[in-house]
Amino acid sequence: MTFKTDIEIAREANKKPIQEIGAKLGIPNEHLLPFGHDKAKVSQEFVADARGRKRGKLILVTAINPTPAGEGKTTTTVGLGDGLNAIGKRAAICIREASLGPNFGMKGGAAGGGYSQVVPMEDMNLHFTGDFHAITSAHNLLSAMIDNHIYWGNELEIDERRITWRRVMDMNDRALRDMVISLGGVSNGFARQTGFDITVASEVMAILCLAADLEDLQRRLGDIVVAYKRDKTPIYCRDIGAEGAMTVLLKDAMQPNLVQTLENNPAFVHGGPFANIAHGCNSVVATQTALGLADYVVTEAGFGADLGAEKFFNIKCRKAGLKPAVAVIVATVRAMKMNGGVVKADLGSENVSAVQKGCPNLGRHIENVKSFGVPVVVAINHFHSDTDAEVQAVKDYVASLGSEAILCRHWAEGSKGISELATRVAELADGDWSQFAPLYGDDMPLYEKIETIARRIYRADEVLADAKIRNQLKEWEAAGYGSLPICMAKTQYSFSTDPNLRGAPDNHSVPVREVRLSAGAGFIVVICGEIMTMPGLPRKPAAQSIRFNDEGLIEGLF
Amino acid sequence: MTFKTDIEIAREANKKPIQEIGAKLGIPNEHLLPFGHDKAKVSQEFVADARGRKRGKLILVTAINPTPAGEGKTTTTVGLGDGLNAIGKRAAICIREASLGPNFGMKGGAAGGGYSQVVPMEDMNLHFTGDFHAITSAHNLLSAMIDNHIYWGNELEIDERRITWRRVMDMNDRALRDMVISLGGVSNGFARQTGFDITVASEVMAILCLAADLEDLQRRLGDIVVAYKRDKTPIYCRDIGAEGAMTVLLKDAMQPNLVQTLENNPAFVHGGPFANIAHGCNSVVATQTALGLADYVVTEAGFGADLGAEKFFNIKCRKAGLKPAVAVIVATVRAMKMNGGVVKADLGSENVSAVQKGCPNLGRHIENVKSFGVPVVVAINHFHSDTDAEVQAVKDYVASLGSEAILCRHWAEGSKGISELATRVAELADGDWSQFAPLYGDDMPLYEKIETIARRIYRADEVLADAKIRNQLKEWEAAGYGSLPICMAKTQYSFSTDPNLRGAPDNHSVPVREVRLSAGAGFIVVICGEIMTMPGLPRKPAAQSIRFNDEGLIEGLF
Repeated sequence: MTFKTDIEIAREANKKPIQEIGAKLGIPNEHLLPFGHDKAKVSQEFVADARGRKRGKLILVTAINPTPAGEGKTTTTVGLGDGLNAIGKRAAICIREASLGPNFGMKGGAAGGGYSQVVPMEDMNLHFTGDFHAITSAHNLLSAMIDNHIYWGNELEIDERRITWRRVMDMNDRALRDMVISLGGVSNGFARQTGFDITVASEVMAILCLAADLEDLQRRLGDIVVAYKRDKTPIYCRDIGAEGAMTVLLKDAMQPNLVQTLENNPAFVHGGPFANIAHGCNSVVATQTALGLADYVVTEAGFGADLGAEKFFNIKCRKAGLKPAVAVIVATVRAMKMNGGVVKADLGSENVSAVQKGCPNLGRHIENVKSFGVPVVVAINHFHSDTDAEVQAVKDYVASLGSEAILCRHWAEGSKGISELATRVAELADGDWSQFAPLYGDDMPLYEKIETIARRIYRADEVLADAKIRNQLKEWEAAGYGSLPICMAKTQYSFSTDPNLRGAPDNHSVPVREVRLSAGAGFIVVICGEIMTMPGLPRKPAAQSIRFNDEGLIEGLF
Repeated sequence: MTFKTDIEIAREANKKPIQEIGAKLGIPNEHLLPFGHDKAKVSQEFVADARGRKRGKLILVTAINPTPAGEGKTTTTVGLGDGLNAIGKRAAICIREASLGPNFGMKGGAAGGGYSQVVPMEDMNLHFTGDFHAITSAHNLLSAMIDNHIYWGNELEIDERRITWRRVMDMNDRALRDMVISLGGVSNGFARQTGFDITVASEVMAILCLAADLEDLQRRLGDIVVAYKRDKTPIYCRDIGAEGAMTVLLKDAMQPNLVQTLENNPAFVHGGPFANIAHGCNSVVATQTALGLADYVVTEAGFGADLGAEKFFNIKCRKAGLKPAVAVIVATVRAMKMNGGVVKADLGSENVSAVQKGCPNLGRHIENVKSFGVPVVVAINHFHSDTDAEVQAVKDYVASLGSEAILCRHWAEGSKGISELATRVAELADGDWSQFAPLYGDDMPLYEKIETIARRIYRADEVLADAKIRNQLKEWEAAGYGSLPICMAKTQYSFSTDPNLRGAPDNHSVPVREVRLSAGAGFIVVICGEIMTMPGLPRKPAAQSIRFNDEGLIEGLF
């Protein structure tokens, strides 16, 4: 069998003017700020109005732990949105923006795949509407102002060894991870060690994605802890006086972006925080705008459900007052097989027992999501090599847990391949079955919150943290940060902190290496294992192959 | 007297939809890529077509050496464009984009002033259409790929001490001028010293502004010299394999931006290279597009005519095959007084003899511009405190040189205040008097080119350069770069290299401190004195005052 590539399909898209897409949601032209003919931002004023309207039903698409076989979470998000529209529902999707830097490392990007994609794909993998550049500018303005404050006399008595605010760039550039700046003499400041993270790791990104509006954005930016004095009292962004200018820099970036699916349905694409040191969801503003305009809103969360759905529920939904109506857990036969021990080269051969052996990973995600009070449907994202017996094995397993798995062929067929899932999801949403509640209350002590996630979601026996970390948490509680939720940063490949431990491991421990306060975003980051916040480029970076071909088309980006 | 501020005037602008502005130049909607309702890019296809059409008349606006009193070069460019339209001519203006970083240092920006402004002013002083962000990304991708190449084995044998390609950021951040990167161990690469420049200083910016189209852009990017081997043979961008991906990153940035004046006339705002280490003009693409669509195109060049007009003629016009029809030299009574020795505090009092004493600075610029074969008119940009006798003194002086000075009140009155100048400029342009030729031929040896500029434009007696610099120039000649024009980097405040030497100094020397090869941009940079390529922030940066006020309007940016 031969298939068209994603980019070939995307280039054949019959795109409609973005004004027509906006009209489907009742957005008037004057509130649609176009970027070219196929992208637009929705004006701040219209967003403020839309958020106060009726509430659509919120549907979360999450997944099993990722494997090299791929799950197709974004593809299923797009497909389900198209599927709901195809059965006559007014639906929109909300997904994250792509980061520019990584596209020049490995072959990149794409928003969905096959016949379930968002377009214009090329722009979305390049500068799009400039949001990430604005975040980079706002972040680095604060950085420059901190060093400038020290240069001009350091009235705030910042301890130069305790500056936690680094700089960011939307690039994979390992050379910038660790550096000494302000060399070269008196006119360049005081030499000190620091570094760059990739833009998606910026707390500004997390803040933009959690802020309700420009006022809330400015307040949160002001709350960022940027450094400490020698006596360890914190220095905030507002002490530096940067939050007003940062807000001005972010005014356009705060407006959600509207594009379309291949089937010309509305897609909000807005924000893209890391799913480890941040919460990994598109912006609250986009989700709330979509909920005010559509009857069904399909969104996704980063990584598997152990990280993505957990943070979506415990951070985003808690903070934004969102109530998810249904959760879809995406699984593939191939990923089940890999969880069952099959290596990538052997994925093409039927192996029902391996599928069965891998299913407990899916099972645990189902249990976990249900524990938040949200009804679950499993979407089996069909791959052409899947056999009927393998698919049936997944269905049987899910049925044994009292849930339902539905085969979806949206990748190959678009909306008509996913109508069964769309119908079932709409029924569940309309039934108002959800009894959503976060996993822990705001008042629970921070360490207990960590333990709760580790025990209830990861099924660990214990959390391991030394006295320094426990004391740090207590200090933050004393400083008034005790009510913040936890943002876990661990490997996405396993329920445990060991990326090689597939399936549904029990009796493991969760060692906490470090805790960080994201006071502006409003969460405590708990780091378990190595977390890379500035990627590098591979030996042969994709950038070497990216170029315009003789027909004027971009090659190598996808 | 009280006046409205520039921003108050700009906010009262009766902006028309950008499609209407495009229609004035015959740009169809499908080739106008909107950014919001008041900005657009002109599509690559349309630009390619427009550039092949008839040629409008090109009018350069330049100025005397800048003083703290201000001259109003951009204001006059905008005013003259409006003035030409007001007398029934089809005219467009072409100016540079503003750099983001400096706006957060000193009160910034603005495109023109009073009733001769380009709007939307706020966007133009923030991210605008993202061109500078794209340039930053393209530049830093190359940087990351260079260090990545070394990390993976350094097959090209780059001498890590001889990497000339730095990184850039559109921010005033002195802490980034000089740094050691790649610290932290094996996985972060090989430690080496480098730094950041501000984005407008990037050779990518100069290249974008001189490139004819995407193909030429890619060729020029490939030509950039990024480093040398131990044997001093150059490593090019194309050896790193970055030029294709950089071109893809710059595809939108290469399309000129269209906005409007307060009087709803078309304004192209595109590119903004430094006026010292680069040539300080808006893009060739914008100028050529405007010339293909309008009968008169008014453009400007950075700094005074000794740097700005010289580079406009010798670099931009030479390389792009442009023939300027008329040059307008902007002067103010106040600036003449400062050149005549009056301090800023005393500018408000009438002082005809000081005006007369300062006029020789203007006189020399007139002579210089005429020497390129281009007819000259002087625009006296009126300030409310100017007296009739002072204005007459300037007019008399200019008349004594056989030229003409015309009083212009466009700042206060818009187009109706500049109709006399517009009429005269149109007459001169229509008369086809220009006998433009660059100052020196391509074949002249590089050192002689420097001497020619120093003697003929600066009126210096000699150029001082040690053997190392002379040898470097000879090596470049041997390597095939001998036909490149010279890009002088010296103070803009004087004809000499001493910023305090006002007026029309003679008998001075031009010491050359350093020469640099911009092989992609296609010029040799000759540095005379200290040139800052990464500014710092002042003690109290403007950013601390920038914020949204209670009415939702931006404060402190202007």
